[in-house]
Amino acid sequence: MTAATATTAPFEHRMRVYWEDTDAGGVVFYANYLKFFERARTEWLRALGVGQQALRDATGAIFVVTDTTVRYRAPARLDDELRVTVSLRQRGTASMTIAQQAWCGEGAQARLLAEGDIRIGCVDQGTFRPRRIPIELISSLT
Amino acid sequence: MTAATATTAPFEHRMRVYWEDTDAGGVVFYANYLKFFERARTEWLRALGVGQQALRDATGAIFVVTDTTVRYRAPARLDDELRVTVSLRQRGTASMTIAQQAWCGEGAQARLLAEGDIRIGCVDQGTFRPRRIPIELISSLT
Amino acid sequence: MTAATATTAPFEHRMRVYWEDTDAGGVVFYANYLKFFERARTEWLRALGVGQQALRDATGAIFVVTDTTVRYRAPARLDDELRVTVSLRQRGTASMTIAQQAWCGEGAQARLLAEGDIRIGCVDQGTFRPRRIPIELISSLT
Amino acid sequence: MTAATATTAPFEHRMRVYWEDTDAGGVVFYANYLKFFERARTEWLRALGVGQQALRDATGAIFVVTDTTVRYRAPARLDDELRVTVSLRQRGTASMTIAQQAWCGEGAQARLLAEGDIRIGCVDQGTFRPRRIPIELISSLT
Repeated sequence: MTAATATTAPFEHRMRVYWEDTDAGGVVFYANYLKFFERARTEWLRALGVGQQALRDATGAIFVVTDTTVRYRAPARLDDELRVTVSLRQRGTASMTIAQQAWCGEGAQARLLAEGDIRIGCVDQGTFRPRRIPIELISSLT
Repeated sequence: MTAATATTAPFEHRMRVYWEDTDAGGVVFYANYLKFFERARTEWLRALGVGQQALRDATGAIFVVTDTTVRYRAPARLDDELRVTVSLRQRGTASMTIAQQAWCGEGAQARLLAEGDIRIGCVDQGTFRPRRIPIELISSLT
Repeated sequence: MTAATATTAPFEHRMRVYWEDTDAGGVVFYANYLKFFERARTEWLRALGVGQQALRDATGAIFVVTDTTVRYRAPARLDDELRVTVSLRQRGTASMTIAQQAWCGEGAQARLLAEGDIRIGCVDQGTFRPRRIPIELISSLT
Repeated sequence: MTAATATTAPFEHRMRVYWEDTDAGGVVFYANYLKFFERARTEWLRALGVGQQALRDATGAIFVVTDTTVRYRAPARLDDELRVTVSLRQRGTASMTIAQQAWCGEGAQARLLAEGDIRIGCVDQGTFRPRRIPIELISSLT
């Protein structure tokens, strides 16, 4: 696999914390950061011109998550507005590693809530066999 | 549609409350009772000899929920053990209405947490068109 | 309880369908419409000047859902953009009933996905005892 | 921190895959393995005599997840029965690292679905400040 490294400012997606996201500790349930990261990746792909349902309907390709590493740094609460970033860290022919962070607040008050690396692979729906990332996306990424 | 009414003691499925089920109010998030009800219906079908994945693979039929009515009576907390009941209230050729309750505790201490009616329909996967409930299941239900 | 009926156009909140919202039927998992409805109610309250975490911190009051009735009309898929509406149907001193709908698409192409009535009560956090809806909210609602 | 390493056979907890666990890819949504791992850790603690709600009520201590690393190896489907293992990998005074695996099937047919390391810390509820793991639990762990 060849590698590419992101050099631009990260993509950012905003979202609110709702009751569904919290747990009895009074804060966001940690597993939900994987969902938040994915929402941001989905919007990042959409901003690059790739709708995943349209991609699947047209080519049979879907992206699956193969590895996740997440560090939880600070808790978020109901009604907090989060900013979730997406940075392409490495790209191969059939997979990508994406660095992501979730922040609460702006400027000097901003707190890092969680950060992680998410590796995703491109596979055929049904068989789940690896396949090349569609060329249109590759060209958008580089 | 013809109708059938349950006369036997309800089927019961036990489950624990985990962190994932709670919200920042310190109790089980109300929307999760729909999940608990479904887990119990799935085990009820399995006890009747119907595995939903096997049914789908063999016939292309899946069950979809078309109507839900739930009343939330009392809160449950982390580590509570719940008993969720399943009673067939009405059966047609392509749909069923099932009465369900979630309880915590046993005997005189038992508290009713939530109860509701769930209507499910049998449809073709893909088209989502209504179809007859498989005959094997019908015969188990009557 | 006295009653008030909404006469204005409903509040509307937009959201996307992500992988987390779907199930193996290829469509949005029905229980998630309760989450979508709540996101919209939360934004409706926020638009009326009520942040639920701030309300809780200031007064100890939280809103809990006591009854839900939902009809599922049509399936939604990954990447669909949903519009979820909020209409106050009835208001008492300690509870409200809210009519909600989830739509996909615009104008003549719009499809109704799900609709329901959600009854919420105002309670003290901790004890879960009913209490009056805060006067600031009441005045915003009428 | 001092370290302790597990030498015994891992604790195992069984669970079924329900509709709620799946996504539109037709398989278990990857983020849900964090939930499955937590269910198994909760049952492991319970088997060691520690109920987390009782611990919290008695001491104000709760466990929070601080780091997760998960590799997703093979997909699981609706109705699959999973076995989730728990092995204490390292224990400090205020944190533990636990190795976990999710399996489907038995014996030679068993497939490893996902595996990971979960680091949890003991904190005070409310402040989220680190505190020593309760001595009763420490003695059960060693």
